[in-house]
Amino acid sequence: MKNDLIPVLDHLAKDSAKSLERLFDFLRIPSVSADPAFKSDVARAANWICGELRSAGLNAAVRPTSGHPMVVAKHEGPPGYDGPRLLYYGHYDVQPADPIELWKSGAFEPVLVDGPRGKRIVARGACDDKGQVMSFVEAFRAWIKVHGTLPCAVTILLEGEEESGSESLEPFLEQNKAELKADACVVSDTGMWDMETPAITTSLRGLVYLEITIHGPNKDLHSGLFGGAVPNPINVLSSIIAAMHDSQRRITIPHFYDDVEETSPRVRQQWQKMGFDDNEFLGSVGLTESFGEVDRTTIERTWSRPTCDVNGIYGGYMGKGAKTVIAAHATAKVSFRLVANQNPRKIIDSVRAFVQARLPKDCRAEFTEFGVNRAFHVPDGSIFLAAAERALTQVYSRPAVLIGSGGSIPAVGAIQRILGAPALLMGFGLDDDCVHSPNEKFEVGCFEGAQKSHAALLSEVGRMRL
Amino acid sequence: MKNDLIPVLDHLAKDSAKSLERLFDFLRIPSVSADPAFKSDVARAANWICGELRSAGLNAAVRPTSGHPMVVAKHEGPPGYDGPRLLYYGHYDVQPADPIELWKSGAFEPVLVDGPRGKRIVARGACDDKGQVMSFVEAFRAWIKVHGTLPCAVTILLEGEEESGSESLEPFLEQNKAELKADACVVSDTGMWDMETPAITTSLRGLVYLEITIHGPNKDLHSGLFGGAVPNPINVLSSIIAAMHDSQRRITIPHFYDDVEETSPRVRQQWQKMGFDDNEFLGSVGLTESFGEVDRTTIERTWSRPTCDVNGIYGGYMGKGAKTVIAAHATAKVSFRLVANQNPRKIIDSVRAFVQARLPKDCRAEFTEFGVNRAFHVPDGSIFLAAAERALTQVYSRPAVLIGSGGSIPAVGAIQRILGAPALLMGFGLDDDCVHSPNEKFEVGCFEGAQKSHAALLSEVGRMRL
Repeated sequence: MKNDLIPVLDHLAKDSAKSLERLFDFLRIPSVSADPAFKSDVARAANWICGELRSAGLNAAVRPTSGHPMVVAKHEGPPGYDGPRLLYYGHYDVQPADPIELWKSGAFEPVLVDGPRGKRIVARGACDDKGQVMSFVEAFRAWIKVHGTLPCAVTILLEGEEESGSESLEPFLEQNKAELKADACVVSDTGMWDMETPAITTSLRGLVYLEITIHGPNKDLHSGLFGGAVPNPINVLSSIIAAMHDSQRRITIPHFYDDVEETSPRVRQQWQKMGFDDNEFLGSVGLTESFGEVDRTTIERTWSRPTCDVNGIYGGYMGKGAKTVIAAHATAKVSFRLVANQNPRKIIDSVRAFVQARLPKDCRAEFTEFGVNRAFHVPDGSIFLAAAERALTQVYSRPAVLIGSGGSIPAVGAIQRILGAPALLMGFGLDDDCVHSPNEKFEVGCFEGAQKSHAALLSEVGRMRL
Repeated sequence: MKNDLIPVLDHLAKDSAKSLERLFDFLRIPSVSADPAFKSDVARAANWICGELRSAGLNAAVRPTSGHPMVVAKHEGPPGYDGPRLLYYGHYDVQPADPIELWKSGAFEPVLVDGPRGKRIVARGACDDKGQVMSFVEAFRAWIKVHGTLPCAVTILLEGEEESGSESLEPFLEQNKAELKADACVVSDTGMWDMETPAITTSLRGLVYLEITIHGPNKDLHSGLFGGAVPNPINVLSSIIAAMHDSQRRITIPHFYDDVEETSPRVRQQWQKMGFDDNEFLGSVGLTESFGEVDRTTIERTWSRPTCDVNGIYGGYMGKGAKTVIAAHATAKVSFRLVANQNPRKIIDSVRAFVQARLPKDCRAEFTEFGVNRAFHVPDGSIFLAAAERALTQVYSRPAVLIGSGGSIPAVGAIQRILGAPALLMGFGLDDDCVHSPNEKFEVGCFEGAQKSHAALLSEVGRMRL
């Protein structure tokens, strides 16, 4: 079976000029989902990619939602196929082009430009996510062209609201749960370690975000008349925030670490060998050293350890000069990045109890919850992870590294939760792709590697039996 | 000599209707110093009170400044007098009348109204400070009318900018230091304990007010990508603020209490007997119990103990909802109420060192100083304090209580510092006088008691020899 892949890779190589033309056509459609002025362009992009999927040989349809449409496509694999089914998730909408004046060429007029790592495609969406979507579409096209079929069953789900809140995604997943059922979900919206080193993102941190307001006196007080004899909500809030970390910069909230899992030795070892450059990472934001939980590397601190950060704080007099006031209340927006198995609900309950336990008499706390996301974590024994690692090994000279990301991708959480399909984050962007910024680009080398990698993954999955 | 006072008090009693008429004339002048529209009225009030001092028998003059004028008057006491000289400080300007619609009668149309404690004078400035100024002017008038002289030497300094920042006061004091030299300064701008209990304010807290900004990364960061590996300025600021108090709610800044003096046993005993009502004081602002330094009463906490209160704090995202940002900087406005001999400069230096010592690497602190006031404190052995106590005993059936105030009166500090004259704060307002609010009033009983008390103080000082 493995030999089936070779002619597919050959075809991809021969077809590369045409695949670029197709991507350019896609990039010319300004499918900016956040701006209602582009509504018909977003619809045009949906129709265009639906047509591509059909021309590649899949059953595809544009499906309306209350927002921008979904594109759903399917292929059942070879006759009589009873192996795993992959769900490919991606998005055909893009970020706005602003600030337009900083683009060196039109945001929706894709060009090939010479760069230090070969030719690059410059346009809004080149990497995020049209280039990455077209990578697997081209892999489908080549497989079907060469062998008349895909080696395994696939479902494709492309949304048009990823850059504007994904409001329709969860309802659509709920309503089409049975139809979208799959054994794993391939998401191609992340990055490589560098152009020679493919990467699979195996962890994304989750998030709990709370607004905490401490109320004290029933009005603002004169600090001369009352100071020293009344609880000051700003001081109380500061004390509570300060108490959330100990001197080792570990979080002191009871049970906070109960469900945190240590990164596996294999992955930690990989991280140590990756040559992550603290100076580059921190220097770019004016810092000279990593500051966080003791005895952890920067990578561990940002990829695999939970955090507590205050994202905003306000209370009392914030104008120019001095006002001798004791404020009636003070507010902090406090967020916790979660990892592995931490349960957001349990964390919120622990935080609330922690705050309540530290309130002086006559003070009360008010809580507002925003955003609750579980962390994403691929267990080290995942068979789809192993398949992806094998696939990447066939395309690249270096083995894939398993990386994490400190942020979260809401769609990944929704798909895992609603469809129960474990996600496989195999992406081909680079850190300098200027995603969401002017002059977004995608290296042609990355585009080609991505096509081959997806072709190889299909081959690997086609040989798996669950 | 003591018998000299009796005919003066008799005269004051007989002249009371006319003294009210004179005060009403003064109150009819809308000498609002903060509003340029009233500039000529402020000047008119200066001329009016200057005329009153002259008609009472003093040498008086209106003295220009770069702002509103000063009124300076003098009397040398009896022929050959070589005893102490008193400087009387007061102000002839008033707060704006706004909100005008809440006044039951015109703010500058004084009326006599029946109240639970007899007649009261209702008008802007009735208590603060025209009524109190006229109290000592009437005492001067009566003394000179009855005896042809005052029993001691006096200088009077009335400013017209007390309600709008006193900008001209310090330069005027500096420029006229020799002329204004005195042995003590009587300030009549404070209050009684209640209508039957006179009070001398023997302590006012000082103030140090700092704005502290903690800088961390050189730009706002994504808390997902960087959280856990960088110092968060809001968390750092909160920790520093929290560290300023210990679990006993004492201030932890090194050397902070070095120069704090304990209140004398005599004054503490008085405070204990005064029947201060915690419930009334705290209940009015929605609190049920006093919260502050352990083992201290509410009076001690607000009158005689230093504090650390954050008056304002801000940083990061303060809008609605959630933003997962780590702010580049965070700011707190932190003030310290000072007592007794605390040196503001020393306190500022200690606070700065305290903050610097707690900064993680890559963070820096920026300090801006606002308002630096020493505390005011009359030592228990002051001979002028004793004279005032004796004077009040002759007028009231209860002895004077020595009270404190948590706030500060900037003019008092300036006079003590520049002229070296210890201040004697003998005031006759009541807590419900609505000073700075609509329907400001002054009890006729307070006005009359104040006149008698000033007459008695003059008598007491006339018998002192330094």
